[in-house]
Amino acid sequence: MMIRHALRRQLVNAARTPAVTKRYAHAPVAFNWEDPLDSTSLFTEEELAIEETAYSYCQERMLPRVLDAYRDEHYDRKILEEMGELGLLGATIKGYDCAGVSSVASGLITREVERVDSGYRSGMSVQSSLVMGGIDEFGTKEQKDRFLPGMAKGKMLGCFGLTEPNHGSDPGSMETTAKPHPSKEGYLSLSGSKTWITNSPIAEVMLVWAKLQSTGKIRGFLIERDQCPPGTLETPPLKNKNGLRASITGMIQLDECPIPEANMFPEVEGLKGPFSCLNSARYGIAWGVIGALEDCIARARTYALERRQFKNNPIAKYQLVQKKLSDAVTDASYGILAATQVGRLKDEGRLAPEMISMIKRQNCDRALMNARTLQEIFGGNAVSDEYGIGRHVANLFVTQTYEGQSDIHSLILGRAITGIQAFV
Amino acid sequence: MMIRHALRRQLVNAARTPAVTKRYAHAPVAFNWEDPLDSTSLFTEEELAIEETAYSYCQERMLPRVLDAYRDEHYDRKILEEMGELGLLGATIKGYDCAGVSSVASGLITREVERVDSGYRSGMSVQSSLVMGGIDEFGTKEQKDRFLPGMAKGKMLGCFGLTEPNHGSDPGSMETTAKPHPSKEGYLSLSGSKTWITNSPIAEVMLVWAKLQSTGKIRGFLIERDQCPPGTLETPPLKNKNGLRASITGMIQLDECPIPEANMFPEVEGLKGPFSCLNSARYGIAWGVIGALEDCIARARTYALERRQFKNNPIAKYQLVQKKLSDAVTDASYGILAATQVGRLKDEGRLAPEMISMIKRQNCDRALMNARTLQEIFGGNAVSDEYGIGRHVANLFVTQTYEGQSDIHSLILGRAITGIQAFV
Amino acid sequence: MMIRHALRRQLVNAARTPAVTKRYAHAPVAFNWEDPLDSTSLFTEEELAIEETAYSYCQERMLPRVLDAYRDEHYDRKILEEMGELGLLGATIKGYDCAGVSSVASGLITREVERVDSGYRSGMSVQSSLVMGGIDEFGTKEQKDRFLPGMAKGKMLGCFGLTEPNHGSDPGSMETTAKPHPSKEGYLSLSGSKTWITNSPIAEVMLVWAKLQSTGKIRGFLIERDQCPPGTLETPPLKNKNGLRASITGMIQLDECPIPEANMFPEVEGLKGPFSCLNSARYGIAWGVIGALEDCIARARTYALERRQFKNNPIAKYQLVQKKLSDAVTDASYGILAATQVGRLKDEGRLAPEMISMIKRQNCDRALMNARTLQEIFGGNAVSDEYGIGRHVANLFVTQTYEGQSDIHSLILGRAITGIQAFV
Amino acid sequence: MMIRHALRRQLVNAARTPAVTKRYAHAPVAFNWEDPLDSTSLFTEEELAIEETAYSYCQERMLPRVLDAYRDEHYDRKILEEMGELGLLGATIKGYDCAGVSSVASGLITREVERVDSGYRSGMSVQSSLVMGGIDEFGTKEQKDRFLPGMAKGKMLGCFGLTEPNHGSDPGSMETTAKPHPSKEGYLSLSGSKTWITNSPIAEVMLVWAKLQSTGKIRGFLIERDQCPPGTLETPPLKNKNGLRASITGMIQLDECPIPEANMFPEVEGLKGPFSCLNSARYGIAWGVIGALEDCIARARTYALERRQFKNNPIAKYQLVQKKLSDAVTDASYGILAATQVGRLKDEGRLAPEMISMIKRQNCDRALMNARTLQEIFGGNAVSDEYGIGRHVANLFVTQTYEGQSDIHSLILGRAITGIQAFV
Repeated sequence: MMIRHALRRQLVNAARTPAVTKRYAHAPVAFNWEDPLDSTSLFTEEELAIEETAYSYCQERMLPRVLDAYRDEHYDRKILEEMGELGLLGATIKGYDCAGVSSVASGLITREVERVDSGYRSGMSVQSSLVMGGIDEFGTKEQKDRFLPGMAKGKMLGCFGLTEPNHGSDPGSMETTAKPHPSKEGYLSLSGSKTWITNSPIAEVMLVWAKLQSTGKIRGFLIERDQCPPGTLETPPLKNKNGLRASITGMIQLDECPIPEANMFPEVEGLKGPFSCLNSARYGIAWGVIGALEDCIARARTYALERRQFKNNPIAKYQLVQKKLSDAVTDASYGILAATQVGRLKDEGRLAPEMISMIKRQNCDRALMNARTLQEIFGGNAVSDEYGIGRHVANLFVTQTYEGQSDIHSLILGRAITGIQAFV
Repeated sequence: MMIRHALRRQLVNAARTPAVTKRYAHAPVAFNWEDPLDSTSLFTEEELAIEETAYSYCQERMLPRVLDAYRDEHYDRKILEEMGELGLLGATIKGYDCAGVSSVASGLITREVERVDSGYRSGMSVQSSLVMGGIDEFGTKEQKDRFLPGMAKGKMLGCFGLTEPNHGSDPGSMETTAKPHPSKEGYLSLSGSKTWITNSPIAEVMLVWAKLQSTGKIRGFLIERDQCPPGTLETPPLKNKNGLRASITGMIQLDECPIPEANMFPEVEGLKGPFSCLNSARYGIAWGVIGALEDCIARARTYALERRQFKNNPIAKYQLVQKKLSDAVTDASYGILAATQVGRLKDEGRLAPEMISMIKRQNCDRALMNARTLQEIFGGNAVSDEYGIGRHVANLFVTQTYEGQSDIHSLILGRAITGIQAFV
Repeated sequence: MMIRHALRRQLVNAARTPAVTKRYAHAPVAFNWEDPLDSTSLFTEEELAIEETAYSYCQERMLPRVLDAYRDEHYDRKILEEMGELGLLGATIKGYDCAGVSSVASGLITREVERVDSGYRSGMSVQSSLVMGGIDEFGTKEQKDRFLPGMAKGKMLGCFGLTEPNHGSDPGSMETTAKPHPSKEGYLSLSGSKTWITNSPIAEVMLVWAKLQSTGKIRGFLIERDQCPPGTLETPPLKNKNGLRASITGMIQLDECPIPEANMFPEVEGLKGPFSCLNSARYGIAWGVIGALEDCIARARTYALERRQFKNNPIAKYQLVQKKLSDAVTDASYGILAATQVGRLKDEGRLAPEMISMIKRQNCDRALMNARTLQEIFGGNAVSDEYGIGRHVANLFVTQTYEGQSDIHSLILGRAITGIQAFV
Repeated sequence: MMIRHALRRQLVNAARTPAVTKRYAHAPVAFNWEDPLDSTSLFTEEELAIEETAYSYCQERMLPRVLDAYRDEHYDRKILEEMGELGLLGATIKGYDCAGVSSVASGLITREVERVDSGYRSGMSVQSSLVMGGIDEFGTKEQKDRFLPGMAKGKMLGCFGLTEPNHGSDPGSMETTAKPHPSKEGYLSLSGSKTWITNSPIAEVMLVWAKLQSTGKIRGFLIERDQCPPGTLETPPLKNKNGLRASITGMIQLDECPIPEANMFPEVEGLKGPFSCLNSARYGIAWGVIGALEDCIARARTYALERRQFKNNPIAKYQLVQKKLSDAVTDASYGILAATQVGRLKDEGRLAPEMISMIKRQNCDRALMNARTLQEIFGGNAVSDEYGIGRHVANLFVTQTYEGQSDIHSLILGRAITGIQAFV
């Protein structure tokens, strides 16, 4: 408990050091293109301080690494360790050496990480929302004690195995199964295959969802890599990705892998478990993609002010350029307000899951659309990866398709609006 | 002062009578398609009570009139009188028999009126924001005392004369002038022509902007119809409109019209005056159009649930229909959050005018686009005016073009983002 | 036969009189914004001459009537008589006093009529494509002789009864039935109700589709108004339309209406009959809506060149205005090429019905979208019906929803592309 | 001359061998999703045979190389040699060992190459349209004799140097200059820098545009790499591109590089020269991007038919998927018709340059937009480069921005429509 308070204080204090640029020093009356609807006024001092910490870390430590990481499809696992040191992992969890901050604060962290790169944000989301969040919500006391403190520090990395090669939008049809282990007492035997698993090649602990043979119900299992006999667990990486190249992705292949019964989540059955984890991650995505969009805006604005064409005018003077900027800035502002509102409702226990479908879908769609439009401002120069915007565009397309493809969320909303499901 | 408190209490109490349907009885945890992001949780009890009053009045008294009014291009001036009785006019003004409520409360009133019809909302906006708001902000104490109480009750109707036939987006080029009256001491003589003036044919008082010859600066004048000699003031109606047909529109033609010097606003010069009034009106539009969109959603949803095609399925089951509903519901939710945020900043004195350009533009654009898409759900039946959605679509196009056409607001935002103006 | 040749010659000659403006005198090498991809080069001399005839008639005789007709929801049936005199009705039919021109020529006529108004084009499409075309394709020799010559002259008006109140996109579920008449030998008794029937209140002959009780199959019937006993046929008009107000629309209500067996189409059964008629009409719509769009372009261009704002610049100088014009001109050009190609294939017997779904859908969608965007150029002035563009916008929305709503055609195409139907 | 005929015959015969799949064997009456508006009927037998040759080569020889080439940013210059052997380079040129085919035939070649990859098409466009086309149009007889035959065979590679680092959309401001060489008689000295030059690192001959100091006018120069003294010519590659990674791109850096006067184009001055070359290339792009889009359609359709979700339905059954396919197929069909029409006008001498702006802009915009939408069908799997569609999406964005960014072409069209230029 004391550790947590210390950590939160550390988070807050870090932001107060004079070295940190105060972007949000006071509320503007002049229009501020970086925060046009003054969303800053909705955040607490603590939340702002946490964002400052995250902002400084991301800009100073992450940003310099991303260009090469993206080119080479390389993920530096030290990043999670560094984030752990700052208290940024599993930040909403109370206890277990976690910071216990608000959902909005965690959203602000996510925004700052994705301002650098969606792949880095994905790596963090998996650790914080999918795995730590899942353990915190559904795990036994013993499971929490065993895994959360190490994960909070970034010393132990996690991954989340739900999606299977043949079942993307429809996890209910999963084929991975858990049955009593034929030879090891007190153990279950897991077999099956998971794909597009962020962090799987480097994770020490895997939260894998499988159908328990005895009930036919989906259950959650914590698999520790170092406990798996040779040949029962493989996590080959998936390379040559079109986007999110600064994150590492792979499969989880389980072949009669023995898992102690104590590593199964005790109560949660069916899709409720993984969907709850996904909802937390999706909430973070709704924040994160706005961070990426904001970075696109800043880059496009700078380019438009510096690039001169036709009588030496900056291209920022052209109406067609200004409209692209106006559209993007507007959608970013609206997206932040919606994410903030949902964060507040989440902490007050007033969340409907479809709210998350709404903000995940809308913020991803609008971030992607605007990023693409802003990319046009760079003209032929957009083809160079040094301008950074092409990387965001490629990443944002992926965010639109994972953790619920945009159309699927449309139909989730449609079902909530009409009472009729239209998936099939 | 006491009147004001009584009025506000009356507004609040009216909403508490059992006859009124409690739409917002308590916050949902289940998804509520009418308020998906629980914006209700952002409003005070008083604000909600005011919205209930407005909602009941609009649905019970306005809605039954609108179909015929729109068909016949007829505006019933009693509507403003009825709204005055309920305390809905000039509601944010403190004193002068006005209710003195928050900007958000006034936005909620606007939303409820435009849920019925944008024309009715226009009639109210002119009275409340453009004329009463202008007098309250820029008038002398004597001007306020003389005009505001009657206008608050809807006994005296106002109109706002800024736009000229040749100067729509560019009021700085206005040609209407005020010069010393050649024969009447203490009077100025106004000449010029204003067009697309809501309420002009029925207004008793006209707030007209004209260039004062002696300074070349734009000034505001309160013209009382019953004080104008014959032939100096004409207000011919403009008929055969494509939209806003339930509001009345006309010209103001001034031909050496004598105006007492005491009817000039004392200090405000240049475009600051009219732009300040317009900003208040635009703020209201940003709320109102979401009301219209919400009505389109409700109508389209009902139609989609009742209309059956192909094997007797309600068309609400079709993915292409559900996507239209999901998109519209999302944009309505986001629009309300943004308007609420700007209302709060307005009351806290933290408003940048470009914030209003942003929400006016975005909410109008999205309301129009979604209303059009929802209209497709009605198929061939959309051609009948009885479904109401065609009326909203036609109205919303007008809201997009008046009080700052959408592109103009894009360039206002573009200028604020880049520091470079691109109007010419 | 000779009549037909004379008629065609008359059509051609009419266009050659010096009084007619030669819009298409020779092919441009300079860019011609009215025909940017030189589609003129694809038309025969005869086709161009026919278009000139239609153009002159439409601009000189139709255009002056349309504003009042639209305001008052009035349709002047003399229009069809005048068109008949010029040989413009049923123009592709060979024999029976019809001109026997190419499908492209008929498309060019349609384009010129809809350049004035989609309602006028609807009135003509019903007469030419739906009724005359249906009789020509499916009627007996006797039926053709009896109806076609009078209809070609516009002396006898027709309407087409397929859509029912509960079955819009799904005519296969129709409820109108034909059974042996209980008392009149050689007669069938028709009962049922049809809605949204263009021309029904003024038609003398109605091509009505009904299920023949004995087979359960849909058959076509020619109902002559003057032969129907009182009380067996009603054709009440449907008023207060949102669009197509210059056409007349109504219902057809049949209550045990006796129809001679000789008035039934002899062979065609099922949806093949009405769908074939609809395909001809849809082909015409694909041409017509481009005519309407071209008129919007011309009106918007003129307005943009004449309207001056900000330092007295014509608003045509603004990038945001130019982009709207460029987009519209491009879509119009592409639409004409596609319609021309499909017309050629039609006459060569190489038509697949889905080609018509494609051009009907695309040309309607793009015409509507661009017309709406062009309407923005008029700013607040767009609200006046005198600029004409609001009328086109309202009309074009209707064309998108009738004779196959856009989404339905998407699914027809989708079925043809994938081999899987997705209607239910 | 005889070589040319032999070559053309070879092109045609190659397509007639039984080994080649006859995709276009006869015109469909059934709907053909690969050619929905039967554009095949517009091509001559020879043109179809040429397309078959190109198709076979591209699918059999190019396609297997592209995945690795794109991953590694590697361009195999043998490709141009192979194309040369087939007679596909400079194919519209008459004489000089070129095939002398129609513009439509050359467009069909382009479409087949870009069906594989836009980068490969770029490499060919530079060789054929920009350099060979430029020499053919503007070169002396001696220049043609010296360069064209080798280039036609793909033995000598060319590149085209127009764009400079500071002047993308506005080449008139170019800074590269040619002045009399200080020491070498009969030589000019060229200095300056060109960027984003496809093929520059591997080209033997460079067509470079520079301002002739004595006149201040832009002139064209043929630079032979092997004639340039060390240090006067550098062509460093530009790596780490976001798209077109299967083409090679670089700079051209000239530092007092001596060029014989005989290597200057004799007459053409100003932007007319490079713009004429660009127009030919842009014409090819308009064809090519449709090829890429068609490949996206085929890939997405296959995926949608094979991928099963929710009750084992192929996702091709979902309305939201079918709509994406319908939209894409429609735009591809329309694009081919427009490109064909412009090709015919080109060969007839009836081309206005703005026609090319129109089809380049529209086809690029629509190809990109639809490719992006189709990519959504792949859901999370889209992130894998093995599905190919992500590569097309990245490539198509580049095609939209090079050789005239989309907005620039909008303004070129806008100028042609309104008579007013809006670039500045």
